Amino acid sequence: MTDPLAFESYWKQMNDECTVVIKGWELMSYYSDSSNMCWFMLPELRDEIERLHHLVGNAVTKDKYIVVGNGSSQLFQAALFAMSPSDVSDQPINVVVAAPYYSEYKNAINVLHSRMFQWVGDAALYDENKPYIEVVTSPNNPDGTLRVPTVNSVAEGKLIHDLAYYWPQYTPITYEADHDVMLFTFSKCTGHAGSRIGWAIVKDIEIAKKMATFVQSSSMGVSKESQTRAAKIIAVICDGYQNFKSIEFELFFEYSKRLMRERWEKFRGAVEQSMVFTVTKYPRTYCNFTNEISETYPSFAWLKCEEGIENSHNYLRKLNICAREGEQFGADSKYVRVSMLGMDDEFNEMLKRLSNAKKE
Amino acid sequence: MTDPLAFESYWKQMNDECTVVIKGWELMSYYSDSSNMCWFMLPELRDEIERLHHLVGNAVTKDKYIVVGNGSSQLFQAALFAMSPSDVSDQPINVVVAAPYYSEYKNAINVLHSRMFQWVGDAALYDENKPYIEVVTSPNNPDGTLRVPTVNSVAEGKLIHDLAYYWPQYTPITYEADHDVMLFTFSKCTGHAGSRIGWAIVKDIEIAKKMATFVQSSSMGVSKESQTRAAKIIAVICDGYQNFKSIEFELFFEYSKRLMRERWEKFRGAVEQSMVFTVTKYPRTYCNFTNEISETYPSFAWLKCEEGIENSHNYLRKLNICAREGEQFGADSKYVRVSMLGMDDEFNEMLKRLSNAKKE
Repeated sequence: MTDPLAFESYWKQMNDECTVVIKGWELMSYYSDSSNMCWFMLPELRDEIERLHHLVGNAVTKDKYIVVGNGSSQLFQAALFAMSPSDVSDQPINVVVAAPYYSEYKNAINVLHSRMFQWVGDAALYDENKPYIEVVTSPNNPDGTLRVPTVNSVAEGKLIHDLAYYWPQYTPITYEADHDVMLFTFSKCTGHAGSRIGWAIVKDIEIAKKMATFVQSSSMGVSKESQTRAAKIIAVICDGYQNFKSIEFELFFEYSKRLMRERWEKFRGAVEQSMVFTVTKYPRTYCNFTNEISETYPSFAWLKCEEGIENSHNYLRKLNICAREGEQFGADSKYVRVSMLGMDDEFNEMLKRLSNAKKE
Repeated sequence: MTDPLAFESYWKQMNDECTVVIKGWELMSYYSDSSNMCWFMLPELRDEIERLHHLVGNAVTKDKYIVVGNGSSQLFQAALFAMSPSDVSDQPINVVVAAPYYSEYKNAINVLHSRMFQWVGDAALYDENKPYIEVVTSPNNPDGTLRVPTVNSVAEGKLIHDLAYYWPQYTPITYEADHDVMLFTFSKCTGHAGSRIGWAIVKDIEIAKKMATFVQSSSMGVSKESQTRAAKIIAVICDGYQNFKSIEFELFFEYSKRLMRERWEKFRGAVEQSMVFTVTKYPRTYCNFTNEISETYPSFAWLKCEEGIENSHNYLRKLNICAREGEQFGADSKYVRVSMLGMDDEFNEMLKRLSNAKKE
């Protein structure tokens, strides 16, 4: 896991406003909302999630069902469970993702050794005439590209949209996503990875119910302490935008977008200086949320090394730069993924080391 | 899920001492302890868990590995994953539990549709000459009995000990458990079910590592807010026993044991008055922790109805008493499980309704 600690400094400024206080006798029950099919979801968290999507305009929540999970990892497994054919005597359904893909999908599938679904790999190569589930990650981890479904097959396909990075600091908000199953995570939205809060926005109530059943049978729900805190922090973000009172600090997405832009500018400079690596150029688009034209500033940089260097990861290791090798993402060893979300010190040190890289 | 809210009143007294305050910028990282194979476990939680077991004397932690999970449900799945043969081309390993058994084991297994392990059912009936995993729940849910392994087979068997209820308020502590894989949960120890904190104490580091891998791939760890709070509350319990300072309130296990004893005495009275049901009599044993001889006071009562009533659950439903039917636990419809851990009001109302039951 790559820690998204870049936004910590923002939350340090906001110290008191975001503090949660939990007394010894509070939050003791398993139940949060018996009237909801997702009975373990705190109503205040559901309300704040809806409010945030409404504010940002990145996803439709109206007439949809929200399921909370222990991070979006658990909801990914829950979605596969819910969308697989319930007759397990059949072949497991194939799960595909266009390469380069987030390496943890494979782990989350393989650890279960399920009869219902199985990891296949690159969606672009899928040519079986069998039902499949395609995961569409947009913006994509590791390479930051905007994605649409890739499979070119006459077979019946279902889609899971992983929109973990579809927030204004990473990419212009160009449309209100309205897909069947959309996954989001608190970790990437605000940087609170330690809370393990994810949510799914689901069109079909039967799918949502099955996902809630999966979370129930696997973990009897989701930490209420984390849910309370996520609700509070999301509320503070929304309040900032909606309460036209004098604002002491920058608003969250302004701050985080500025930080990402500044980092990417410096990073591109260092990459150019290195003369060893290249990095994708992203298109500039109008963002409906910030009302300005801007680039995508992904949470990871996907570096490709120049001819003559066979293994980017080894090369970076020599420079003492922490990275994940391309092969883990279904790409080749010329590629490597570097985090853009480290602490300031780490990030600046990485830039220094990178700009000193010179092909020998 | 049956809410263990009986102890809420204790934590209300302890209000301030148990309060946790979490600032907006705290607990943001995925990582808790990079030096530990269970990298997502807060060191302070590990320390407090060890301290509590040392205080109570209910489990050996020395030279063992602790893995934290999203409730013990997740750790149950993790243990099955870790203890199953890694060659999944073989038949899935059989999982058995002596009836009557906790109904959620079956759900936690079946929801995964795993190639590694499968639910078989009653351990007492197991006569296959194939490897198996037996779950030993002691004290048992639903019937409060103390359990030892049951399978009588020459096949190779592995054991998971679910010791969720092996705490002084429920049963005398007669020995320091020292099994291969032991599961505990914060929910039943202190009543904080909403926090979803469970832990496993594991002898073999390879099993512990695989369990941590399962938790990682399924949920990228465990809520830090919940871990922080669990550590705090466990510390308050231990401090009470260890700090010989003047204590304003009863100590936790004194309070909770007194409450369970009082409830069981009233409950037995009501059952006798009903002339419809019978309930197991538990042996009296010396408790090494409280230094007194006492009965088992299970968190559930396992009721059997008299001849002439075929379905206990229907009968209780007519009396407006909430219960879970015996069939769910692998028993017959003469049996029914009733919670002893509801709020005071609920419990007293249940007693009233029960003592009014008369066979027509």
